[in-house]
Amino acid sequence: MIIIGEKINGFIPKTLAAIESKDSDYIRTIAQAQEVGGAAYLDICAGVAPEIERETLQWLIDIALSAADVPLCLDSSDPSMLVEMYEYVQEKANGRQASEGLINSVSLEEGKCEAIFPVIAAGKWGVVALTCDNNGIPDDPEVKLQLARELIKRAGDAGIGPERLFIDPLVTTLATKQDSLINFNDGIKLIKAEFPTVHFTSGLSNISFGMPYRKAINMQFLSLAMVAGMDSAIMDPTSSDMQATLHATAALLGQDEYCMEYLTAYRAGLFGTAPKPA
Amino acid sequence: MIIIGEKINGFIPKTLAAIESKDSDYIRTIAQAQEVGGAAYLDICAGVAPEIERETLQWLIDIALSAADVPLCLDSSDPSMLVEMYEYVQEKANGRQASEGLINSVSLEEGKCEAIFPVIAAGKWGVVALTCDNNGIPDDPEVKLQLARELIKRAGDAGIGPERLFIDPLVTTLATKQDSLINFNDGIKLIKAEFPTVHFTSGLSNISFGMPYRKAINMQFLSLAMVAGMDSAIMDPTSSDMQATLHATAALLGQDEYCMEYLTAYRAGLFGTAPKPA
Repeated sequence: MIIIGEKINGFIPKTLAAIESKDSDYIRTIAQAQEVGGAAYLDICAGVAPEIERETLQWLIDIALSAADVPLCLDSSDPSMLVEMYEYVQEKANGRQASEGLINSVSLEEGKCEAIFPVIAAGKWGVVALTCDNNGIPDDPEVKLQLARELIKRAGDAGIGPERLFIDPLVTTLATKQDSLINFNDGIKLIKAEFPTVHFTSGLSNISFGMPYRKAINMQFLSLAMVAGMDSAIMDPTSSDMQATLHATAALLGQDEYCMEYLTAYRAGLFGTAPKPA
Repeated sequence: MIIIGEKINGFIPKTLAAIESKDSDYIRTIAQAQEVGGAAYLDICAGVAPEIERETLQWLIDIALSAADVPLCLDSSDPSMLVEMYEYVQEKANGRQASEGLINSVSLEEGKCEAIFPVIAAGKWGVVALTCDNNGIPDDPEVKLQLARELIKRAGDAGIGPERLFIDPLVTTLATKQDSLINFNDGIKLIKAEFPTVHFTSGLSNISFGMPYRKAINMQFLSLAMVAGMDSAIMDPTSSDMQATLHATAALLGQDEYCMEYLTAYRAGLFGTAPKPA
């Protein structure tokens, strides 16, 4: 599983409080904790008013680059801001933090692919690509496939291979849509059959909106989407419940030879009650 | 999901201690707690030396029949003991506790089907049927299917329809067999394709033997086996983690209209942190 650490995000109240009080220690701490938790990328989302998004993102990027040796996942709804921040990272970062990373996100909404693809094409960065367009978010797996096809085609035209795309088939809310997981998983299966090298990712918490004890739904969503082929998640790698779910599921699905990753994560204290190292 | 409550079992140390000290209050308490947790059957297993198995089972059966209005699942490795206890329940129980129930278990080991099937054929009792024979437990899903075919044939010859069988395709230990879940699930899928009305059940904890933090493996085993079609489990319905896993998975798989069962179980305090009723 390719973990995109979700915690540096101003839409999370604790992170917003740290942003507002310029508490760089908190941001540094969650950057490092997510690195320890196996994050392959650190999502960076300001979650503030547009007038201060640029300075906030730059502040978060500076801290994340210095706190952890993990590539970033630049997250904004404004494609021009994503382009600016991509260039900012190219200027400020070294090594794989410059050469690797993700843009979060493009979709078929007007202007998104057009802004992002040419800018990142020459390098190795990947991009989270949402199966939606100006008509909104489709439930029908066949429509998810059609939109994925178009996203993959436009990326290809710009010189970006499918292996650099992290398709998010956009799960809907279970409380209002009984077949949200089924449609999500069917979307993955259809897209994967046609494009075996693309990655699939999703935030884990939208599906449980409006339900009590959301954690249970989020955990089983992770597990059940892995069955369909989801190989990435935008999640909290500091959550022991999520780590236990992820590693147990990977072991059960035969993705973890001799359960070595499960055992290593357990011994590192990422979940369960491992004895403290001496 | 058809829950077979596992707690009245002398192989569980706390239950064995209650058996040894004749602590009928404890047995009564776990019988009632499992009823509250939605158990459709209460497993009754003595887990003691053969010389005292009969009296122990009778004592447990007496308590369980009076403590809860739930049919029993009589559990012994000795088929003649199962026959005796079936007759004991017929004599002692009323209503659905007499007319419904399960025998746990038969297999193709010599003498098992022959002893059990004729005795229960006339009534409505079901039977847990293990896909093993004198050659042991097969890993290969095709062999699981062949054994299931033979079990279903022998049951049918005795007048027991496939809908009364709870096939257990016998999961192996993950720590020693990386594909144990895969083989188990493939076994279910093969058998279900040929016999759509049989039930599938399993104990949840064998798979995690030898692993740390077994709970995580057991929870995801439940969830992932439900995907393949397992519709019953021999489990602890008083475990909030298992209840959360079961209800979240059922909701995500579209088996819980409007998430009503999830919400009801949550409000009843079976998992999560429901506010106490006023």
